[in-house]
Amino acid sequence: MTAAASMTGAGSAGAPKRGRPTISDVAAHAGVSKGLVSFALNDRPGVSAETRDRILASAQELGWRPSVRARSLSVDRSFALGLVIGRNADVIAADPFFHAFIAGVESEFSMSGQVLVLAAATPGREEAETYRGLAADKRVDGVILTDLRAGDERVPLVVELGLAAVTLGRPDQDSPFPAVSVDDGAGIRTAVDHLAALGHRRIAHVAGPDTMLHGHRRTVAFESAMREAGLDDPIVVTTDFSASEGARATRALLERAVRPTAIVYSNDHMALAGISVARRAGIAVPEELSVTGFDNTDLADHVFPSLTSVATDAVAWGAVAARTLLSSIAGHAPGDVQLDAPRLVVRESTARPPT
Amino acid sequence: MTAAASMTGAGSAGAPKRGRPTISDVAAHAGVSKGLVSFALNDRPGVSAETRDRILASAQELGWRPSVRARSLSVDRSFALGLVIGRNADVIAADPFFHAFIAGVESEFSMSGQVLVLAAATPGREEAETYRGLAADKRVDGVILTDLRAGDERVPLVVELGLAAVTLGRPDQDSPFPAVSVDDGAGIRTAVDHLAALGHRRIAHVAGPDTMLHGHRRTVAFESAMREAGLDDPIVVTTDFSASEGARATRALLERAVRPTAIVYSNDHMALAGISVARRAGIAVPEELSVTGFDNTDLADHVFPSLTSVATDAVAWGAVAARTLLSSIAGHAPGDVQLDAPRLVVRESTARPPT
Repeated sequence: MTAAASMTGAGSAGAPKRGRPTISDVAAHAGVSKGLVSFALNDRPGVSAETRDRILASAQELGWRPSVRARSLSVDRSFALGLVIGRNADVIAADPFFHAFIAGVESEFSMSGQVLVLAAATPGREEAETYRGLAADKRVDGVILTDLRAGDERVPLVVELGLAAVTLGRPDQDSPFPAVSVDDGAGIRTAVDHLAALGHRRIAHVAGPDTMLHGHRRTVAFESAMREAGLDDPIVVTTDFSASEGARATRALLERAVRPTAIVYSNDHMALAGISVARRAGIAVPEELSVTGFDNTDLADHVFPSLTSVATDAVAWGAVAARTLLSSIAGHAPGDVQLDAPRLVVRESTARPPT
Repeated sequence: MTAAASMTGAGSAGAPKRGRPTISDVAAHAGVSKGLVSFALNDRPGVSAETRDRILASAQELGWRPSVRARSLSVDRSFALGLVIGRNADVIAADPFFHAFIAGVESEFSMSGQVLVLAAATPGREEAETYRGLAADKRVDGVILTDLRAGDERVPLVVELGLAAVTLGRPDQDSPFPAVSVDDGAGIRTAVDHLAALGHRRIAHVAGPDTMLHGHRRTVAFESAMREAGLDDPIVVTTDFSASEGARATRALLERAVRPTAIVYSNDHMALAGISVARRAGIAVPEELSVTGFDNTDLADHVFPSLTSVATDAVAWGAVAARTLLSSIAGHAPGDVQLDAPRLVVRESTARPPT
């Protein structure tokens, strides 16, 4: 090859074109043994954090990727995590939470060679068949269980199938799986306390489906926060989390003989729909009605009035859930993880009640 | 087993507990041969639509699922489609399009035993490595290429890797893959024509990234629609599709010495942020400023003023893309598919310009 020829080709500057880098290349670059590289890359115990970081840096610099096919034939693993979403397409499409959560899961995968296998199935028989299929086909090493229900049948099913798992929130039944939780009840309480401090007494809650544990827990938290603050009897309307049901619930609340002076919504989209229903009825927000959202989505800061919202970090939740599940699959025994408590981001949609 | 015992257990009513149903069971139920069942389930040519429907109905009724592991060992296929999203986590999390699109892809999978493998990677080397990894590990049989860029390097890469593929929109280069397209230029034109008919002459466009072909095509369509309608020089501001940049672009437009009387946004979230910027500046929508969105998301109908928006069907787009790719993998040679032209859903955010 001539010098001129070696100058051509997109890969010539800094990234010589050759075969895929191997574990030996990474070991030589990091100045450690191949065995240690293997331990570090598979997240096994016995490698110091400092050495592991050096090895990962070398792997990244060389552009090393695990050969999943080879590993999976030798250790009978899939190097994939599964997420089965038990809602219909329209509801999934409209809920920003899953989007952010999945992005967080993916953010953990760049170095590990793992992928996310995504399936949608309506709860019940189709859902159970989907989990059985993922296990039988060895599609995934573990699954992330979201939207837990009361006495959730997925927990014993996944135990029976021999898959690893992580649950979002602790199930209300025995479960051998680590739970990664956000205290969303505490989130609802920060909203109620903020409104109570402003002087509100008649506060309503537009909740998600009561069949989901997190929806149920938020409602319970709302009711107990109202009682503890000595406020009026709590009013709760359940919905399917969609903007359309948020609007319907708001209309019902505003038509009451004595209407609430504040509404605590279970997500931002329902809160935005609710503000619009109020304004359309000539009720000023926040002067005549205070409104809080949940999830602190992209839009909350960019609407008028801007939306007071309970901030949870769905991206971080996804990342921690993935990390916990990967640790479980690697043979560690990760405990439950409690994420930072949600905090209330106060903006323009809440104020003192009308006098 | 006694009669009493047979009454216990969740599965006793209508769904006898036994082994997984086989192809023979499906064949017996549908009254056809095993071979025909296999042909129908693998979507091979030579089965009439009526027979195929009957076989699929039997398979569904019996709860039959393909044994992917067995099939994949015999035919060297993964029975998985891949989607690599080349945006960062925050932008993915905030864009409702991907959510709806993925839900549409999933809706095609319930019977076929396919799954979706999802990965996120920044465009460039990491993205290329991700595709190489998916191919080398035989994770997927084919990939869906979204957010095409000018001279997109993924097209030759995927050809080299021997994967099947479908592109969203036709690339601006040679591509052997079927394209599933929506004429979003036509969508932008319906918005411009609607505004022109109302009497607007000074119209601005808040566009997505110009590096993406669909963003570029919408801008070109906007500029030519403006010229064809004999309107003022088109004003275009590019963004990253986020609400925050939509707000920034709107502020810049409203601060111009002669401000536009209408703004055509590239998605609904930017349009909602834009309406809020205008109202905050004391500019009434639609009396002093008309606004159109794009994608006709869940919120468009539930805000005040409700949002005139170009309706594309991202769920259907996902479903058709998946179907086309599966057909390609099954050995058919599907042609390009042009989906229904987007239509403008006129709501309250557009009106005659101020006189």
